[in-house]
Amino acid sequence: MQMYDLIRKKRDGGELTDQEIRGFITAYTAGQVPDYQVAALLMAIYFRGMTRAETVTLTDAMAHSGDTLDLSAFGTFSVDKHSTGGVGDKTTLIVAPLVASLGGKVAKMSGRGLGHTGGTVDKLESIPGYRTDLSREAFLHQVEETGVAVIGQTGNLTPADKLLYALRDVTATVDSIPLITSSIMSKKLAAGSHNIVLDVKVGSGAFMKTPQQAEELAREMVRIGKDCGRRVAALLTDMDVPLGRAVGNALEVQEAVQVLRGDSHGDLREVSLALAAEMAALVHGWDPREARSRAEQALDSGAALACMRQWVAAQGGDPRCIDDPAQLPTAVYSREVVAPTDGYITAMDAERIGHAAVLLGAGRMQKGDTIAPGAGLYLHRKTGEAVRAGERLCTLYADEQARFSAAAEAYLDAITLSSSASGSRSLIYATIR
Amino acid sequence: MQMYDLIRKKRDGGELTDQEIRGFITAYTAGQVPDYQVAALLMAIYFRGMTRAETVTLTDAMAHSGDTLDLSAFGTFSVDKHSTGGVGDKTTLIVAPLVASLGGKVAKMSGRGLGHTGGTVDKLESIPGYRTDLSREAFLHQVEETGVAVIGQTGNLTPADKLLYALRDVTATVDSIPLITSSIMSKKLAAGSHNIVLDVKVGSGAFMKTPQQAEELAREMVRIGKDCGRRVAALLTDMDVPLGRAVGNALEVQEAVQVLRGDSHGDLREVSLALAAEMAALVHGWDPREARSRAEQALDSGAALACMRQWVAAQGGDPRCIDDPAQLPTAVYSREVVAPTDGYITAMDAERIGHAAVLLGAGRMQKGDTIAPGAGLYLHRKTGEAVRAGERLCTLYADEQARFSAAAEAYLDAITLSSSASGSRSLIYATIR
Repeated sequence: MQMYDLIRKKRDGGELTDQEIRGFITAYTAGQVPDYQVAALLMAIYFRGMTRAETVTLTDAMAHSGDTLDLSAFGTFSVDKHSTGGVGDKTTLIVAPLVASLGGKVAKMSGRGLGHTGGTVDKLESIPGYRTDLSREAFLHQVEETGVAVIGQTGNLTPADKLLYALRDVTATVDSIPLITSSIMSKKLAAGSHNIVLDVKVGSGAFMKTPQQAEELAREMVRIGKDCGRRVAALLTDMDVPLGRAVGNALEVQEAVQVLRGDSHGDLREVSLALAAEMAALVHGWDPREARSRAEQALDSGAALACMRQWVAAQGGDPRCIDDPAQLPTAVYSREVVAPTDGYITAMDAERIGHAAVLLGAGRMQKGDTIAPGAGLYLHRKTGEAVRAGERLCTLYADEQARFSAAAEAYLDAITLSSSASGSRSLIYATIR
Repeated sequence: MQMYDLIRKKRDGGELTDQEIRGFITAYTAGQVPDYQVAALLMAIYFRGMTRAETVTLTDAMAHSGDTLDLSAFGTFSVDKHSTGGVGDKTTLIVAPLVASLGGKVAKMSGRGLGHTGGTVDKLESIPGYRTDLSREAFLHQVEETGVAVIGQTGNLTPADKLLYALRDVTATVDSIPLITSSIMSKKLAAGSHNIVLDVKVGSGAFMKTPQQAEELAREMVRIGKDCGRRVAALLTDMDVPLGRAVGNALEVQEAVQVLRGDSHGDLREVSLALAAEMAALVHGWDPREARSRAEQALDSGAALACMRQWVAAQGGDPRCIDDPAQLPTAVYSREVVAPTDGYITAMDAERIGHAAVLLGAGRMQKGDTIAPGAGLYLHRKTGEAVRAGERLCTLYADEQARFSAAAEAYLDAITLSSSASGSRSLIYATIR
């Protein structure tokens, strides 16, 4: 494997062979290829793209660059979900027990939040006692027993992706469909589930700003995942507006429980049901209508909520949190933001709302920052809703009062209050199977 | 200067500002920008190109990244020549005294040979006593007195180019017109001459394989050089076949002297006259016809030869070498290669001939290799010429007999002997002013 020849071939629009791609990934993971040559190759890929065969090989090579999780004990019932990242996205907390209650085996590794997007691991850790660092044996045993376990990333999974992502991040080569696809799908392959549903977010708070971009990425990820031997589907869901009304770790756990209890009927319930139905459909081969109806039933019957109780308890968390939200950590202070005038909220920049949550202590500016589990925002009004002067728009939560003024400013910058209502927004743009 | 933003801007087809380019070159030269970000930028430039304004700024910034040579004492009479590199190219040895005898001030820094191309400094060092390491003061004084001095590269000239070239070489980003242009022209600007003639080689032994590629590069270099305030012209000359008949250091000095003595009337004389005329025309503002006629006169009158004698003597070389070639070093052994059959030489791969010379000890495989000054080839027959079976095609010279067999093989691989003659070849494809 001569790295120079690979760069030149890709630069000139050639197709890299299986051997060339695998040789590159092996050598780079072993520290035998300098970053400057990889940076040149990545930029050449940015311009020339990759064929389907190249992307499949790259994805597979990255998936096998480190440890992989063996979920073969669960046969074709293992199922995973991946979100491209959003604000207020607590769907995993709802979807995981819901799909488990329908017979799926949800053995999931999740990440921590960084920047304006939250992380499922942070949300779960706001439940007193919840352990995100199970041993591999304990993890698999719990999935076997309760149908669901969600832990932090463990082992040396996809080291090639970690190296490549860090390099892409500083060389302006992130925005490339084959590179995004191989990064996401290699991690999903290494995580071992046979069925994978991708939640590709679209809008101001998402990496993909338009449905067209998101659809292109989703189609490629589904195609590559299938070529790698998995069952894959993708939903394109809205992230112009935060999902649900809570942004912040314990606040989001509480809202997820509300959905599982049947106390919440907004966008969060709708997106969660769509994702869970898609996951169950892949696992069981159900048609979409049947899958949807069974998912609604599992939610309405309390089966999903019961599964969440079991799951949290099995993983060391205090199960009383599920029935009594007062058991969850709360922030020391709260402050309300009221509408300065009558009007309608016509836009809400999800990324800026996420930024406001970080300012309140709910997220991280940099890796390693500590977070306040009770901090965050509760959005009393969302896009499309009317408000009267003096009515609450939002409640801010923080452990230090000094955080409120910058966060309130960020929140107000994020919303648009107009005298006339805007058109309705889409929640799910497309399903790619 | 945020390097990430520069990469992204260029990737997206934007035009980098003066400040951005200068900031990048300053920071990179100071070791403050990692190679991987520069590699990504170079590949983005490869795909997006650079505007004329960007290339001018890059060239100027690189030219001023280190020391520069101040030739202002010579006003508008200083004149330099740059060849993009060829085999058997000893034109500097002829052109420098010829132009000096016409009133030009030739203050020239030259390089050493590497790979299949020779270097003027190596050729001059085959003259016993010739010093290529004059102090700056001695160098300028000699130019003032004799009109010509040729030394090795001195000082810390264009360090940005050295860094960028080394990186381009391993990231497949060499073949980019703006990057080649800025690399060559920055060195010429730093070397200080007001008038610059570029000898852009075309053909099998050259970097540019077709006249079209070479013309594109030549036009860009002339344009950028003029925009940087110099007088510039370019000739596109043939390098499908080695220039002249001698390849190897002392052999080439001897052939250059033959041209200056009026004893040689082939392609070498023709290309040298064309280059010298172009240089003199720039210096004096002569029209091409007048410049050509004056250059021929300086050659035929012996004025150029007299100037060479003065130059070599001033620089410590033994001037007897100019009148008596036997004073030059000779190889210990020689061996002839004869034609296996009657025929015509219809092709001669200049790069392979250069390789044969390296095998004989006349050049370097790697930097720092020592060379044998008397080693090389003398081509009794060149492309277009007839030969009878048993007649000499070429004489090989080396200090060790063991070198002959591989060199003879390389030489025979380089030539094509056919039963019918080929068409005539061009010597000078175009002049760009």
